[in-house]
Amino acid sequence: TSLEAVNKPPPVVHYHLNNVTTTADPIGNQETVLILTPLARFYQEYWNNLLALSYPHHLIALGFIIPKTKEGNAATISLQAAIASTQTGPEAKRFASIIIMRQDFDPPLQSQDEAERHKKENQKARRAAMSRARNSLLFTTIGPSTSWVLWLDADIIETPPTLIQDLASHDKPVIVPNCLQRFTNDQGKADTRPYDYNSWQDSQQAQDMAANMAPDDIILEGYNDMATYRTLMAMTADKSDNRDINAVIALDGVGGTALLVKAEVHRDGAMFPPFAFYHLMETEGFAKMARRLGWGCWGLPNYFVYHYNE
Amino acid sequence: TSLEAVNKPPPVVHYHLNNVTTTADPIGNQETVLILTPLARFYQEYWNNLLALSYPHHLIALGFIIPKTKEGNAATISLQAAIASTQTGPEAKRFASIIIMRQDFDPPLQSQDEAERHKKENQKARRAAMSRARNSLLFTTIGPSTSWVLWLDADIIETPPTLIQDLASHDKPVIVPNCLQRFTNDQGKADTRPYDYNSWQDSQQAQDMAANMAPDDIILEGYNDMATYRTLMAMTADKSDNRDINAVIALDGVGGTALLVKAEVHRDGAMFPPFAFYHLMETEGFAKMARRLGWGCWGLPNYFVYHYNE
Ligand SMILES: Nc1nc2c(ncn2[C@@H]2O[C@H](COP(=O)(O)OP(=O)(O)O)[C@@H](O)[C@H]2O)c(=O)[nH]1
Ligand SMILES: Nc1nc2c(ncn2[C@@H]2O[C@H](COP(=O)(O)OP(=O)(O)O)[C@@H](O)[C@H]2O)c(=O)[nH]1
Ligand SMILES: [Mn+2]
Ligand SMILES: [Mn+2]
Repeated sequence: TSLEAVNKPPPVVHYHLNNVTTTADPIGNQETVLILTPLARFYQEYWNNLLALSYPHHLIALGFIIPKTKEGNAATISLQAAIASTQTGPEAKRFASIIIMRQDFDPPLQSQDEAERHKKENQKARRAAMSRARNSLLFTTIGPSTSWVLWLDADIIETPPTLIQDLASHDKPVIVPNCLQRFTNDQGKADTRPYDYNSWQDSQQAQDMAANMAPDDIILEGYNDMATYRTLMAMTADKSDNRDINAVIALDGVGGTALLVKAEVHRDGAMFPPFAFYHLMETEGFAKMARRLGWGCWGLPNYFVYHYNE
Repeated sequence: TSLEAVNKPPPVVHYHLNNVTTTADPIGNQETVLILTPLARFYQEYWNNLLALSYPHHLIALGFIIPKTKEGNAATISLQAAIASTQTGPEAKRFASIIIMRQDFDPPLQSQDEAERHKKENQKARRAAMSRARNSLLFTTIGPSTSWVLWLDADIIETPPTLIQDLASHDKPVIVPNCLQRFTNDQGKADTRPYDYNSWQDSQQAQDMAANMAPDDIILEGYNDMATYRTLMAMTADKSDNRDINAVIALDGVGGTALLVKAEVHRDGAMFPPFAFYHLMETEGFAKMARRLGWGCWGLPNYFVYHYNE
């Protein structure tokens, strides 16, 4: 019942937003990074990977939003145990601050039966819920001294330790690595395959499709009856050892499994639309909104992060 | 260069958003209010009116965003003097916290000549800049324990002292009083006239107009060559002494001179679109966005606040 959480001593704080830099050398300029994770399940591999990030932890704040479900309660307990261990461990590994938010979600609108019959409609409700979770987390945690926001899903279990520095080095408003998944292929060999289809370059076909849709309809990637002919970044990965990991391409849609955003893009108003925005939602809608605000979105087709494989 | 501003001790904070209530009895429930003011000029009358608000000041946080112009610098100095006096004065008058943000804005896109020729285009750039300022302020100051956000322009110099309680008592997601202006009429008598035209109920004509517009065009209120036939709340004020100050009407657009919003509406993602959103921008676009998210917008035609008269 106090404002202590909103407020910081001293009672009057004066910020010059222009002094909050976002540069290609974020460590040199001591820029703060807010890592935001919507979390339904806790994976120790996610936490271990987070701990292994070589960006100075005293410049990193963590924010989590966890649904108030049975699964969410279990995830909260595991997360708190991991946090307790890290924040009492070696000082260099401790993070500057951690916020955990719990949030109820509306009960599902449809019965299981209907759900089966309207899979795309379901997808819309699901992405709306994810958008609301991301927005709540973002609006609540971003502060006047935040330089960068790194969106990192709770099932991203492997990234280069230099993830933040590497993404920031491109000095782009919005930049997304390529999200793959490890698996064992038919020959029993360790292999990788594309995971996140939300990072794409638009196609004329998809634009025509949008032009003929009802206002609230959305285009979804990965449905057979809805071929978009977009260029999916996940499909263009060069997996060779001598690939150029710095290759960068312009994107129209971005995924959110791992996504670095200059905080000023969010401050300008770019959020995750929980409604059809140019027939797009959530992270894809965010990319559209960022571009409407004049910020470019970029992808690194040959720089990989890995999604958990159940 | 530290995260202290973002972070609060203790390093791990756990929030249950559902425990942050927004009720018709905000004082009884000790609900926190964040008063946000984009401020280009400082009026002592604004500050005096703010000080006179009877809502417990220890539950109120203030946030200001001030442009980095000559005028903005002067306003900052005056504001800081007012703050210093209040925050060292009687404890009951002190606010829980105050954040002042300074922000550069893009140089105007057009020469004065062009500005003269394209007034509506100018209006668009101006409302985009105001939207960005409001979004920066909002994203930076809203915290996990904020219950309500009161938008209050720096030139609102007279409101009932019970403004917050009165607006909150209606328990609406978004609610706006009627903004008038005092003036001396032709007969030399003290009189009032409508000031804010952005609180309105939509018309078929305006919807037809929107349907035939280019995607980035916006409908503006108050241009002779653009009659919208919307019902403007400012025009429907009952000024009689025995008026019903609790009369409440549904609105499609809202103004931001004084505007009470449940923080969860903003957390859901409702912000001030700096681009054409259903052919609307800024506070009118915010109302549309809130409604797209399922939150209703309401107005009090007979409950008055007053805008400065230069
Ligand atoms: N707060 C919250 N997080 C969720 C919810 N559902 C999934 N998540 C998390 O959001 C991220 C993306 O969800 P996920 O199911 O992995 O999506 P997918 O990999 O795109 O199929 C993951 O970090 C999940 O743990 C939810 O209802 N609420
Ligand atoms: N931060 C910021 N505030 C501004 C700017 N221009 C005006 N304001 C403030 O924003 C509010 C609305 O602007 P105002 O010019 O009064 O708009 P009007 O009354 O609708 O014509 C007032 O509180 C102004 O002091 C600006 O460029 N930046
Ligand atoms: Mn996932
Ligand atoms: Mn004004």
